Amino acid sequence: MMYNTDYFEESLQLHALKKGKLETVSKAPVRTEEDLSAAYLPGVTNPCMLLAQNPDDAYKYSIKSNTVLVVGDGSSVPGLGNIGGPASLPFMESIAILLKEYGGVDAFPICLDTQKADEIIETVIRIAPAFGAVCLEGVAAPKCFEVEKRLKEKLGIPVFHNGQHGFAIAAGAAVINAFRLLGKPLAKVRAVVCGAGAAGNATAKMLVLLGVRDIVVCDSKGIVSASRFSEFDEDKLELLEFSNKDGLNGGLEEALRDRDLCIGASKPRVLTERMISSMARDSVVFALAFPEPEILPDFAQNAGARIVGAGLPDFPNRIDSLLAFPGIFRGALDAGAPDITDAMKIAAAYAIAGQVSDKELYEEQIVPSVFKGGLAGKVAAAVAAAWVKEEK
Amino acid sequence: MMYNTDYFEESLQLHALKKGKLETVSKAPVRTEEDLSAAYLPGVTNPCMLLAQNPDDAYKYSIKSNTVLVVGDGSSVPGLGNIGGPASLPFMESIAILLKEYGGVDAFPICLDTQKADEIIETVIRIAPAFGAVCLEGVAAPKCFEVEKRLKEKLGIPVFHNGQHGFAIAAGAAVINAFRLLGKPLAKVRAVVCGAGAAGNATAKMLVLLGVRDIVVCDSKGIVSASRFSEFDEDKLELLEFSNKDGLNGGLEEALRDRDLCIGASKPRVLTERMISSMARDSVVFALAFPEPEILPDFAQNAGARIVGAGLPDFPNRIDSLLAFPGIFRGALDAGAPDITDAMKIAAAYAIAGQVSDKELYEEQIVPSVFKGGLAGKVAAAVAAAWVKEEK
Repeated sequence: MMYNTDYFEESLQLHALKKGKLETVSKAPVRTEEDLSAAYLPGVTNPCMLLAQNPDDAYKYSIKSNTVLVVGDGSSVPGLGNIGGPASLPFMESIAILLKEYGGVDAFPICLDTQKADEIIETVIRIAPAFGAVCLEGVAAPKCFEVEKRLKEKLGIPVFHNGQHGFAIAAGAAVINAFRLLGKPLAKVRAVVCGAGAAGNATAKMLVLLGVRDIVVCDSKGIVSASRFSEFDEDKLELLEFSNKDGLNGGLEEALRDRDLCIGASKPRVLTERMISSMARDSVVFALAFPEPEILPDFAQNAGARIVGAGLPDFPNRIDSLLAFPGIFRGALDAGAPDITDAMKIAAAYAIAGQVSDKELYEEQIVPSVFKGGLAGKVAAAVAAAWVKEEK
Repeated sequence: MMYNTDYFEESLQLHALKKGKLETVSKAPVRTEEDLSAAYLPGVTNPCMLLAQNPDDAYKYSIKSNTVLVVGDGSSVPGLGNIGGPASLPFMESIAILLKEYGGVDAFPICLDTQKADEIIETVIRIAPAFGAVCLEGVAAPKCFEVEKRLKEKLGIPVFHNGQHGFAIAAGAAVINAFRLLGKPLAKVRAVVCGAGAAGNATAKMLVLLGVRDIVVCDSKGIVSASRFSEFDEDKLELLEFSNKDGLNGGLEEALRDRDLCIGASKPRVLTERMISSMARDSVVFALAFPEPEILPDFAQNAGARIVGAGLPDFPNRIDSLLAFPGIFRGALDAGAPDITDAMKIAAAYAIAGQVSDKELYEEQIVPSVFKGGLAGKVAAAVAAAWVKEEK
């Protein structure tokens, strides 16, 4: 069994009872003439006037400095795929409340009624003024790469596609700790990333940032290799620049043979015990597909994997972007960073990994619990410090 | 003196201290595995799936049923004019918090980085899925007429330009009570609306809805009359259909002579004592310009006006859209209305007026205080009932 299906009924009840999960609340009193005159007219014309003179005053006098736009088109919702922007609202609300509850970041979900990259970009730019950062969520590959890139160029505030980087940073933290436990330097790890969509692409790049040199990426048709050049979009061509340096060809079977690490960012049940048993001794298998892993952690262990993890509750080593994104936005906003850079992502991965002490670290406790007190704060501090260092 | 300039310093302090006035808060607990499984993955895929099958389930399982989009382009912010979307954020936050604090309606401010009507319409349509209604705010005339009309046609949820209808309904309530006190039927009132922008245009139409038959509208160049036909946009041509039936020409002087009612929705200081003294006996003057009235209420009274009102604090009879908009959105959402119709606007005006009892009604208490307990609830009930009746 993959997950407790009771969650579905409980979830429906929760959503129906509360009529959604997010509310807006006033921070200013408005119950007397004096209150109103300061929080509304005529007083509010004063901060407006200052913002008109100096747009950066929005960080001083408005919600901008602590407010994140959670935005997407519902083209890639975990476990559901392309359900469209309107239907993605409950999921987008989830991201918004987690940003607040874990990171102290105010966030509002906007579900777009368009799925065209140009229109997504144009719309986000037009609605951006109230926001200090943008969390793209639920946008499918390869569209997500272009949307993020162009928004980063145009907006001047942090833009972070959680389906890529939140996933990759959480996976990166797990990789750091797995090989910390095994005593193997990341430079010597031979890795496979199974999946070349938003999450897989970002995870492969994250491994490079962490110092892994030997990486093979597989998409649904097999190993991403130069021989398949003509099939590839820009994002897969980019993978060729740093992956599969030995020019392997074939499928997952060929990719996994003698490998130390397999990170699944693809589809349920694509990995077999036979594939896992062909991996090197003390192998590490993180099967992070949703709603079911690429292989059940138990099966992977039976097939010889030493350390296993999944993206779901009910398994040890739950590797979820929730480990990363609340602290990352908190840190980026605190530092006033105009972007979320590679250095900030690396810092986040190490900060998450660092939340498991040497004493606590063992095969079934590779990553901290998402509930660990102070986790997002530690991630935020590391992310902010990384930006401050980079800015100098 | 028009208003206490201390408000400006207090307002800046408030805005800086709180870093804006609105926060987002989770309604769902997310502190245990069970919490997360219901409020986030995997449980949240269930309401998403239902929304994908039936879009109306958004009203059951998401924030949509109680969430209003407060949106504008900053082209007409009270007292400041066209400061642009980004600079209007503190004002837009004010509307959002007042919707929540007075109407119990969750609301989020979106300040647009475009001022083109087509792009405003297109953008609001694209971001509309999360919202149960749209409050246009701070959009200048004549653009606001087209934007509102086209959004009403396309969205299928209530769209309400507060700068037009919130103003007009509050003024309408004051008109109802002024002539209730004076014992004069509205059908016999001879009215002038000074100003033909968003607020003036809507106020003139509101007077028609309330049964006033003799209305003259003045814009900045004088009486809106058929002789000026060639100057007019569609919105002013529309005014000609019901106003100035006697074909008056001239300026405010000519318009005001022997009139019972003058509603100012224009610019500070355009009315003189001489004009007011030319009005009929027991005249009513509501000078609602911002940040200063068309004429100070004291001066209007000295010139012979019997009942006066302004749009500012520090004067009796503060006539502000805040009397109207929280209850109107509350009522429209409660009724599940797809629009805010004329019948709902009339109901709102009478509900506001009805909050001053016969005993309480005198020259300086024509409208209830915005702080009157239960006001928004009464307005909401009347608006919802009007929709239910209309729907049948």
